[in-house]
Amino acid sequence: MILQPIIDLAAICAKKGIKNVILSPGSRCAPITLAFVRHPEIHCRTIADERSAAFIALGMAQQLEKPVVLVCTSGSAALNYAPAVAEAFFQQIPLIVITADRPAEWIDQWDGQTIRQENSFGKHIKADFTFPDEFSHPDKIWHAQRITNEAINKAGQYPCGPVHLNIPLREPFYPENEEIFSFKNKPRVFDEIKGIPVLSDDSILKLKTSLEKYRRILIVPGQQRPNPEITTLLNKIIQDKKAVVVTDVISNLQSDHSITYHDHFLQVQEDQSGICPDLIISFGKSIISKSLKLFLRKSEAAHWHIQPNGYVPDTYQRLDKKIQTHPSYLLKLLDENLQATDESFYDQWKNAEEKLMYHFPQIMEQADFGEYKAIHECLKHLPSPSKIHLSNSMPVRYVNFIGIKDSDQEVICNRGTSGIDGSNSTAIGCTFTTKEPVVLITGDMAFFYDRNAFWHNYSLPNLRIILLNNHAGGIFRLIEGPSRQPELEEFFETKQKLNADFLAQEHGFEYALVEDEVNLKEILKNFYHPSVRPKILEITSESKKNAQILQQIKAAVKQVFEI
Amino acid sequence: MILQPIIDLAAICAKKGIKNVILSPGSRCAPITLAFVRHPEIHCRTIADERSAAFIALGMAQQLEKPVVLVCTSGSAALNYAPAVAEAFFQQIPLIVITADRPAEWIDQWDGQTIRQENSFGKHIKADFTFPDEFSHPDKIWHAQRITNEAINKAGQYPCGPVHLNIPLREPFYPENEEIFSFKNKPRVFDEIKGIPVLSDDSILKLKTSLEKYRRILIVPGQQRPNPEITTLLNKIIQDKKAVVVTDVISNLQSDHSITYHDHFLQVQEDQSGICPDLIISFGKSIISKSLKLFLRKSEAAHWHIQPNGYVPDTYQRLDKKIQTHPSYLLKLLDENLQATDESFYDQWKNAEEKLMYHFPQIMEQADFGEYKAIHECLKHLPSPSKIHLSNSMPVRYVNFIGIKDSDQEVICNRGTSGIDGSNSTAIGCTFTTKEPVVLITGDMAFFYDRNAFWHNYSLPNLRIILLNNHAGGIFRLIEGPSRQPELEEFFETKQKLNADFLAQEHGFEYALVEDEVNLKEILKNFYHPSVRPKILEITSESKKNAQILQQIKAAVKQVFEI
Repeated sequence: MILQPIIDLAAICAKKGIKNVILSPGSRCAPITLAFVRHPEIHCRTIADERSAAFIALGMAQQLEKPVVLVCTSGSAALNYAPAVAEAFFQQIPLIVITADRPAEWIDQWDGQTIRQENSFGKHIKADFTFPDEFSHPDKIWHAQRITNEAINKAGQYPCGPVHLNIPLREPFYPENEEIFSFKNKPRVFDEIKGIPVLSDDSILKLKTSLEKYRRILIVPGQQRPNPEITTLLNKIIQDKKAVVVTDVISNLQSDHSITYHDHFLQVQEDQSGICPDLIISFGKSIISKSLKLFLRKSEAAHWHIQPNGYVPDTYQRLDKKIQTHPSYLLKLLDENLQATDESFYDQWKNAEEKLMYHFPQIMEQADFGEYKAIHECLKHLPSPSKIHLSNSMPVRYVNFIGIKDSDQEVICNRGTSGIDGSNSTAIGCTFTTKEPVVLITGDMAFFYDRNAFWHNYSLPNLRIILLNNHAGGIFRLIEGPSRQPELEEFFETKQKLNADFLAQEHGFEYALVEDEVNLKEILKNFYHPSVRPKILEITSESKKNAQILQQIKAAVKQVFEI
Repeated sequence: MILQPIIDLAAICAKKGIKNVILSPGSRCAPITLAFVRHPEIHCRTIADERSAAFIALGMAQQLEKPVVLVCTSGSAALNYAPAVAEAFFQQIPLIVITADRPAEWIDQWDGQTIRQENSFGKHIKADFTFPDEFSHPDKIWHAQRITNEAINKAGQYPCGPVHLNIPLREPFYPENEEIFSFKNKPRVFDEIKGIPVLSDDSILKLKTSLEKYRRILIVPGQQRPNPEITTLLNKIIQDKKAVVVTDVISNLQSDHSITYHDHFLQVQEDQSGICPDLIISFGKSIISKSLKLFLRKSEAAHWHIQPNGYVPDTYQRLDKKIQTHPSYLLKLLDENLQATDESFYDQWKNAEEKLMYHFPQIMEQADFGEYKAIHECLKHLPSPSKIHLSNSMPVRYVNFIGIKDSDQEVICNRGTSGIDGSNSTAIGCTFTTKEPVVLITGDMAFFYDRNAFWHNYSLPNLRIILLNNHAGGIFRLIEGPSRQPELEEFFETKQKLNADFLAQEHGFEYALVEDEVNLKEILKNFYHPSVRPKILEITSESKKNAQILQQIKAAVKQVFEI
């Protein structure tokens, strides 16, 4: 039977600019599946494992900056979305999660694929809606349209995030032969014209007055997408010596002017009094560097965070002011109003950066071959433009040490929850949105955890995977506590035996295994070149050796600051 | 730093009879990991993918009838438990889900691996506890012990189920070198001595009076573990012609006396007036057979459900009386008090069963080779005793058609949520509890969905996997709606290309591929024999052909009833 309000749901999505849907197979969701698949302006893909499906949708929405729709059947299917939904919630990525459900009367009656689906995503969802389960009264049809509009609007409001639309459906789910499937009727669309938050003259005056107090200003952008306007503004502020800007790699704002080696020197410097800020100005989301976090937490600085709306975390335990506007708006204001920064403060940051800019390449040159050097080498050859997906745990930390300054190379990492659970899928979602090379740098634990990312029928020619395989969760050897425990190998590192060779064969990926630098350099000559099939470059190394190298490099950096 | 209350947590678990823990790697959970790993009476295993870890724990607890503990780190890890936790909730299996967390002040501050973990499992958990985050006051230590006892008691109370213990932890997580790890101090244990619900003389008298009204009694046991006492009682009731007993394969109560072919004849019989019950008596959990459900829903019968405690679903929409006691207690009462059943009612059920008992083997003999016949053949050779794990979707339906009458062959299937998401892992959990052969019969979608079940370092010598690979979700071709849609192959069946050969190679499993009956019979000669390595028997068939065969067999069954 055709339910027009379900067809209208797809039509409203299309009208509101949603063009992409990730489906997972099921029967109860059939009316929703058919509505999206048959809509001429919507592109559907189908992914069997809902956990991967949801991260793929997230990877797409992250790039598109538009909601992507997820559709699954009733029962535990929706629960497999939970990790990606939480990531989307904290990374502020818009998703419309549509779950087919049994009507209320059949919940808790021991019918198959029936759970308590309403509000499945707990506190990790922006809003949770339940569709009417029948449409006999015209108000029900209005309600369905109203809910759909609200859900889409809500997902896209700052801060963006996932919303859940639970749709109870009764059999029959399929159109009869004589029924005509039609998107003709005009669905009700409720648009939002977004306001831009600006500051009143009075607020600006007060800010200016406040700013006069500060001469040691540290701007710390958090995770965000590349933004040329912000890059230009920041570089001007730095060059005019009005502030120091410290950029983690996930800020996508690293440049020749910003501080990028902080993760090295903040952990080895003994006297940091000269670089302590009196004001921290932040925008964007989280940062990677634990050294930077600890440094800022022990500072006495005030902390202003710029954000157009919503809740602000107090990452540095110094939060003082939330400035409710867009970063670029405030950065313009800063540029116009900041005094020259304290010279010694500015110089000490610059000196530390320059020392490493000079010495770090040599340190890497002299380092033994292992994961660290392998990533360093791989990053040298990165194509531009490209999308660099980093898995959590070590890859994002290594890359943050090394840095990426090309603004056409976007760095992406699931730092909402910082899980290892969906990095392959997120990267694959990204390939569905761009023809640029998508380079995933990942560890073996994250890679095999999310291997179902590859279990579908879509080609991924622009995907390049750099797999750092140390056959374990190598991070546990790199932190001090677990490495001292006798349980290290079995219960922390968790030895795992797989290589990617069989995986590559079963999915028809190009595959190369390297164990040394000569080989790596050889492979890298054409690894990033265009190809029909995706490529995996597996770099094996020993977890123990990697830990030693990390210590060696840290010691060498320390030495630079002791000269 | 050692936290004694965390060590006590492990000690309390051990004292209360919990011997098995499934860990997943992480750093925040280290104090909990170490407490369990170092406890001399507790056996820990580590599984990297939390989704599989949780289903493995479920597979163990299902067999042990004791809670199994799960331990994971903070962040999205816990969310990957959600599908198994929901399955445990509806299948009433005791799990103690322990999640490490950041202390409350660090939630929502953009720190890594930090989500809103309290109450992560929503409405699919029996209870949700939060541990104290420090132990400066003695009441906090008492509280921690109290919570642990409560959690374990709650998980094991009828109906059993999962409970969640969220444990906020601050650094340092690891014992210092001079710290001594000791289980010596006596943890507070609060035991439960369970009461057995019996009926008052008055209730018994009323039941007897009520029973006098009924002469067409149908006993319908739902899913449960094998129970020799109940089997004997039921067989006596049947042989004394006091009731008809209809047994789905997941009831583990099929015998030569019970009705086992109902799923065939209920869907083809035209006149069912003669077999309509006036009283349905049920116990256990859900049933598989949709035909039986529909038949009972359209009956005019009263429905009594026997259950010691808790919520009772109204699966047949005829629920009339809940009898709060154990099934065996009530079956004894029935045996003593039931009158002879209506003869024609009894005979008509028996005749239908006997007709198929005679004709079904011939029908199968004559059927073309496909999944149906392959399973039929595989079941013929099943070892006894053994554990038969069935994945959802088609395998459990096929096996329900064919039947398993050997009471030493336990049939297991995740019918709590009826998802395909954890059947491999559940079977593997089972192998950790028994040396009997564990035979998993699964389809390709369920099998590859949960392939991370095999991603660990434990040997599985008694595991046998029968993989029915039709390279798609074949069920969608077998139900009428989707098979009429042009989207059938891409969006319902979801063609998938994988075979299990690479998977078998990467995990070192024995592997055989068969495509025809001769080959299958050959392989089955020693497939179930003991071996060092687990074995996969992959049977490929064509989804279209399987659909035809199912129709042919249905038609042949129909013919039996038209003779």
